[in-house]
Order: sequence, then C-alpha cells, then structure tokens
Amino acid sequence: MAFPLPDPMRRALALAEAAAMEGEVPVGAVIVRNGEVLAEGGNAPRRLSDPTAHAEMIAIRAAAERIGADRLQECELWVTLEPCAMCAGAIALARIARVYYGAPDPKGGGVEHGARVFAQPTCHHRPEVYSGIGEREAGALLRTFFQARR
Amino acid sequence: MAFPLPDPMRRALALAEAAAMEGEVPVGAVIVRNGEVLAEGGNAPRRLSDPTAHAEMIAIRAAAERIGADRLQECELWVTLEPCAMCAGAIALARIARVYYGAPDPKGGGVEHGARVFAQPTCHHRPEVYSGIGEREAGALLRTFFQARR
Repeated sequence: MAFPLPDPMRRALALAEAAAMEGEVPVGAVIVRNGEVLAEGGNAPRRLSDPTAHAEMIAIRAAAERIGADRLQECELWVTLEPCAMCAGAIALARIARVYYGAPDPKGGGVEHGARVFAQPTCHHRPEVYSGIGEREAGALLRTFFQARR
Repeated sequence: MAFPLPDPMRRALALAEAAAMEGEVPVGAVIVRNGEVLAEGGNAPRRLSDPTAHAEMIAIRAAAERIGADRLQECELWVTLEPCAMCAGAIALARIARVYYGAPDPKGGGVEHGARVFAQPTCHHRPEVYSGIGEREAGALLRTFFQARR
C-alpha cells in the first residue's frame, strides 16, 4: 500500500541526496519538536574532516545549541538509515523521545543490529523506535551511491 | 606496585579534574600521535549545551580538524573512564589505533560493558584496548564528584 511519506522523512531523504552529491554516504536527519523542524543534518565526515559528523550527530548538536540545553526530551529524530552505535548512544544521551528511521543497516546499525544500544542495561534512556518509513527510498539512494563507486 | 602514570593519562586526569570544577562529570581525554599530544578534551555537555560533548568526542573532533582528515589511524586515545557506546562508536569510526582507559564504567560503559561496541560484527575497526591505567585516580575523582552532589 502506497502512502505519502511524512514531511520530516521527505526532508531527511533530500538531505541524504544532497550528501551524496558531495561524495558522502547518503544519510539525512531531521529533528522535530511539536511539529516544528528544530535542526537537520546531512552526513559529512569527509567534507568536515570529522569522523563524528554523521547526519544524526549534526542534527542533535544543532538542536541542542538552538534549545540551549544538552537534553532534547520532547524531540523526535527522523533519519533515513538505522543509526550506528555512536549515533544511538548520542540519541540516548540527548533523551530524544522518538526515533523514526528508514532503511535497516545490517552491516553498521546499532539499534536492531550489533551493539543494540537501546536494549542494553547501560542505556539510561530508551526512545520509542519506528522503522521502515521511507525504507525503499533511503535504500535506493544508498544502492545508487555504492554502485556508482564500484 | 606503584609506578608513575604515563604523561597522557596524567594530563587526562587533570582535564577530568578541571571538568569537575565546572560542574561536569569528571572525565578527561588526550589524543597522542608519535608521542605528540594532538588534541585533548574535558567532559562538557552542560557547559556547551551539547549532549555529544564527552571528553573523547571533543578530543577526536579536535584531532581530526588538526590533521584535516576524518581518520586518526596512527593515534592513541587516553581517557580516564571506559568510553560509552557513543564514544566507542566514534573511536571505531575514527580508526584510532589504541585506547587506554582508567576506570571501568559498569553503569554506562560501552567497551567491556553493555553495548561492547568493539566486539560486534557491525564494528569495522577494533582498536587495541588497555584498561586500568590511572583507574584508582580516575575512580577517586568520580566518587568525590558524585558524593559532593548527593
């Protein structure tokens, strides 16, 4: 059944596409609070010379700076790909309420794969997690990107 | 047997102590390449309004910026406390060669506890890990900090 993607995921997909145009693995993220976009980010470790500059990290840091606090309690994060262990850890530290992600990442994910950060007893905040929204579009962007680099 | 702590761990402990003076959980980190200190950081999420501003993350980002690349292959990271899942993920992404940490963190660690990031098949770089160097000093700083806040 086809249904239109929610606006934040469409925006995250556009950010992912823009990242690919810069030669970065296409991942995009948007942080929303009360229906308002607080911050966004596109994956940029190479461009920024920063191994931590995943889309989610850029969006989290920008949202926290905008709010002026290190907690994003009432926020939701929309991201095109399953967050890795680093990003999942940051999501928990930031106390983000809900995470919506598109494609699963069996090779590098840290939510439903590998480190399964939110399922650990050392994780002190577990967001609600919804996956699969925009999975097809996010997966297509990633496949196109990696095929072109082979 | 008592022996003098290596310089980078002594510096990391001083950074942890300085963080505590700012009201932050006392953790400090130093990145060394070929015996030269490349970058350092003290835990500062509250002061910087940045949930990702752990000591390790600040040091990793500063080292990468200084090198002008998103990989820190020949670097070692000295940190007073076992890295959390976020920081362990960042260490792997940055391809840091060796990690030396002081105190274990059973409640929030992500190396020998919880997410055990480096032990996962989704982890694409495993640094050498050495623990316990400066454990007594790092643990004392943390205990003093948390006792004073009770």
